[in-house]
Amino acid sequence: FTSTESLSAAKLLKASGLDPVVLEARDRVGGRTFTVQNKEAKWVDLGGAYIGPTQNRILRLAKEYGIKTYKVNEQENLVHYVNGKSYPFKGSLPPMWNPIALMDFNNLFRTMDKMGEEIPRDAPWRAPHAEEWDKMTMQELFEKLCWTRTARRFATLFVNVNVTSEPHEVSALWFLWYVKQCGGTMRIFSTTNGGQERKFVGGANQVSQCMARELGDRVKLQSPVYRIDQTGDMVVVETVDKQTYKAKYVIVATPPALNLKMHFNPELPPLRNQLINRVPMGSVIKCMVYYRENFWRKKGYCGSMVIEEEGAPIGLTLDDTKPDGTVPCIMGFILAHKCRKLSSLSKEERRICEIYSKVLGTDEALHPVHYEEKNWCEEEYSGGCYTAYFPPGILTQFGRVLREPVGKLYFAGTETATEWSGYMEGAVQAGERAAREVMCAMGKLQPNQIWQPEPENDEIRALPFVTTFWERNLPSVDGFLKFLGVSTFLSAAAAAGLVAYKKGIIPRS
Amino acid sequence: FTSTESLSAAKLLKASGLDPVVLEARDRVGGRTFTVQNKEAKWVDLGGAYIGPTQNRILRLAKEYGIKTYKVNEQENLVHYVNGKSYPFKGSLPPMWNPIALMDFNNLFRTMDKMGEEIPRDAPWRAPHAEEWDKMTMQELFEKLCWTRTARRFATLFVNVNVTSEPHEVSALWFLWYVKQCGGTMRIFSTTNGGQERKFVGGANQVSQCMARELGDRVKLQSPVYRIDQTGDMVVVETVDKQTYKAKYVIVATPPALNLKMHFNPELPPLRNQLINRVPMGSVIKCMVYYRENFWRKKGYCGSMVIEEEGAPIGLTLDDTKPDGTVPCIMGFILAHKCRKLSSLSKEERRICEIYSKVLGTDEALHPVHYEEKNWCEEEYSGGCYTAYFPPGILTQFGRVLREPVGKLYFAGTETATEWSGYMEGAVQAGERAAREVMCAMGKLQPNQIWQPEPENDEIRALPFVTTFWERNLPSVDGFLKFLGVSTFLSAAAAAGLVAYKKGIIPRS
Repeated sequence: FTSTESLSAAKLLKASGLDPVVLEARDRVGGRTFTVQNKEAKWVDLGGAYIGPTQNRILRLAKEYGIKTYKVNEQENLVHYVNGKSYPFKGSLPPMWNPIALMDFNNLFRTMDKMGEEIPRDAPWRAPHAEEWDKMTMQELFEKLCWTRTARRFATLFVNVNVTSEPHEVSALWFLWYVKQCGGTMRIFSTTNGGQERKFVGGANQVSQCMARELGDRVKLQSPVYRIDQTGDMVVVETVDKQTYKAKYVIVATPPALNLKMHFNPELPPLRNQLINRVPMGSVIKCMVYYRENFWRKKGYCGSMVIEEEGAPIGLTLDDTKPDGTVPCIMGFILAHKCRKLSSLSKEERRICEIYSKVLGTDEALHPVHYEEKNWCEEEYSGGCYTAYFPPGILTQFGRVLREPVGKLYFAGTETATEWSGYMEGAVQAGERAAREVMCAMGKLQPNQIWQPEPENDEIRALPFVTTFWERNLPSVDGFLKFLGVSTFLSAAAAAGLVAYKKGIIPRS
Repeated sequence: FTSTESLSAAKLLKASGLDPVVLEARDRVGGRTFTVQNKEAKWVDLGGAYIGPTQNRILRLAKEYGIKTYKVNEQENLVHYVNGKSYPFKGSLPPMWNPIALMDFNNLFRTMDKMGEEIPRDAPWRAPHAEEWDKMTMQELFEKLCWTRTARRFATLFVNVNVTSEPHEVSALWFLWYVKQCGGTMRIFSTTNGGQERKFVGGANQVSQCMARELGDRVKLQSPVYRIDQTGDMVVVETVDKQTYKAKYVIVATPPALNLKMHFNPELPPLRNQLINRVPMGSVIKCMVYYRENFWRKKGYCGSMVIEEEGAPIGLTLDDTKPDGTVPCIMGFILAHKCRKLSSLSKEERRICEIYSKVLGTDEALHPVHYEEKNWCEEEYSGGCYTAYFPPGILTQFGRVLREPVGKLYFAGTETATEWSGYMEGAVQAGERAAREVMCAMGKLQPNQIWQPEPENDEIRALPFVTTFWERNLPSVDGFLKFLGVSTFLSAAAAAGLVAYKKGIIPRS
């Protein structure tokens, strides 16, 4: 039914001497990665594309197949567009100039990371405050934490960009877990040293293609599974193209919601049956605008734009020019509610180039030479992208059955991962873990061998994110106001004391 | 794929001279209604059972087939169990004795109804405050409206009972719409004069059975649809039992989430593709405990218990004794989070009789003679019960595609109704409306004939809920505190004035 998950599972099973078959719903492998080749774009990733340090499993696979990575351009300035003005900056997050906003912003990100620290990667429902945080949406948490509109608005974009959904749609526990299992707010959001540091030369789909080539005719395309029967000795799997397969074990490597595409005999257990209609996929259109020239670099911009503006279709862009400098291109995301609003409009009506022209301050942006896009909401066999989100209340109630086997069915899907879940890295972790679960069920592995840590890639290494003294110690707005209050009181008291002393009310002993 | 919806649609189409076929996934008709017959229970509704005034469409069908209704027993006292004590009462909602709690409670229900008034039944996303209310969960709304734990706790039960989900799981806009389209807080929650006033003699499933009998071999059981292809002139529908059907039009009469059970060619449009993984079904186990004797009536209780206690499995009960007084039985619901927690336990471990014994104050409750239950979470072809709920943010973004046709596909399902959606009544409205949409597409009806009002049943009439002067005019706690504040200030001012006057500070002109 997929993609990096099923292929990496099958690869591992085959390497262990087993005989797996991969049933892929689409007419291509790769699932939520999708590389298109044509004259204008050479190659372009219209689905999952970015990798970075700490994503060691996907980097291991790529290295094995000789697929090279290159750095997304971040040489020149990034630009933050807010209140109709562009502010160039360097670093991961846009700087704040207003001291109150700065305190607020700093406190917000510090607090999200601190909350993340107490959430177990592999069992977020066991966090000490799991119940409380799961009953809250991220919007509620932002309302509690933020004092300024500036911080709240950027926080909204932060959710939009990372999980293609709105702060009021997602559980706070789930979102904080998601950010944590990617390595924190800086790792998930950064280009340099973060999740968007690199891309694969030639496209992300190659990893799946190489694995599929290795698996040969074990990979069956255009074979959507509609029925899984495990009432007999062998599991019987039927596909829409009217083939029947029999297997000892089955790995269902789809996003959880797509389990619903299959009719099960016997029925799934109650909690799994309900989980799969509670975890929707995010909403995103990936838009690639091609230009004759890389005009933004000449103006001192790297191509990364962080756009806060309700009227703008795009929320975040990155330079997508080829590593050799050819095929100048800006990649932009239409996110969450904007994606739903703009789904029915034509490319022209969405006015993507207009906003680039405003942000970059040049008419050159108005004259693209080519355009590619992919609306992931329309994909029947993804349901949306990048990944599934958990609305309030679901993670604590249903999270524990996410990867719990059902008879001879095992569950992969990047949603079941515990590191970079939602990314290609999570897909590999999930696929390999599910393969090892099957091997364990067959007596070929010990239970303690199912989960395996991955050594760090020797070329692409993670640097720590160094926090400054002020980032660690700047008060929150709340703290600052209390401090102001106390110090005003103390100053007043001191002043009164001084006056009293001078007037002789306090005896000079 | 169902049930009251598809059968009522087919009945209407047949009556109009067309030739419909009903494909039912299960080995029985009736969907979320499910009547079991056996020696101990005679007959028992383990699914949808209750009907009441204003549900005129389902009452019309029942009358046509000569199916009689009877009143659920509410002669004696209801009982409200809270803080470990039982408080007998009469009426729809338990009374509050603490005056602050009373004001709070009164204000809460009045406010929910008032908010409901501005939500259009057929287009809740067009309510003046739609965006704002949809971003909030009911829990957030309760936190804003309620001053007392008493009101907040009862409000939670009110959500649990009406929509089998938790206040923090559902959108405030959606829940307020749901209550409104059932006729308001009193109509939805009441037994007498409300949604639980009556049951069908012989069981609710009979309505579907009678329609199925009328349709004869047009109803195909055990025929789950897994594929719908509308690329040709005729729509091609394939079922898991390997039959192929061709039709000019198709009515998909399932809860929205179960559209996912089908593989579509061409794919569904983006918004519908995403809607169907965003509307989960509620969680409920319906539990029937049978006793030798109707001991509660002797003690002055009618059998209705409203139970507020975290440790109790059951949240609400009703007397389920047969209309002739035989087969004494208590019907109870295990709701929302308790349903998920208790799904994996045995009947004995759930200790249902223990709580009945505590609430009714007698050991007689500990000695049942028979037990029946149905956990709707385990049903593959329902996904849960009673109905789908909308998490925050979904209704405003995706609501408008809920019943929007896709090519030759039309959508029924009680979730698409505008009166008593979620109930059998809504199922009939939805089925008949979808049938008329098809007839309109065939040129047999005008577009303005699709939606038809239903005349009131001449036997089962709705009485208005009369509000008292105090219910209308009692202040909220907020208002009361402001009043206290202002009057304290005024009294103080008046007292000061009096003192000043007496002391001669104010000149006696």
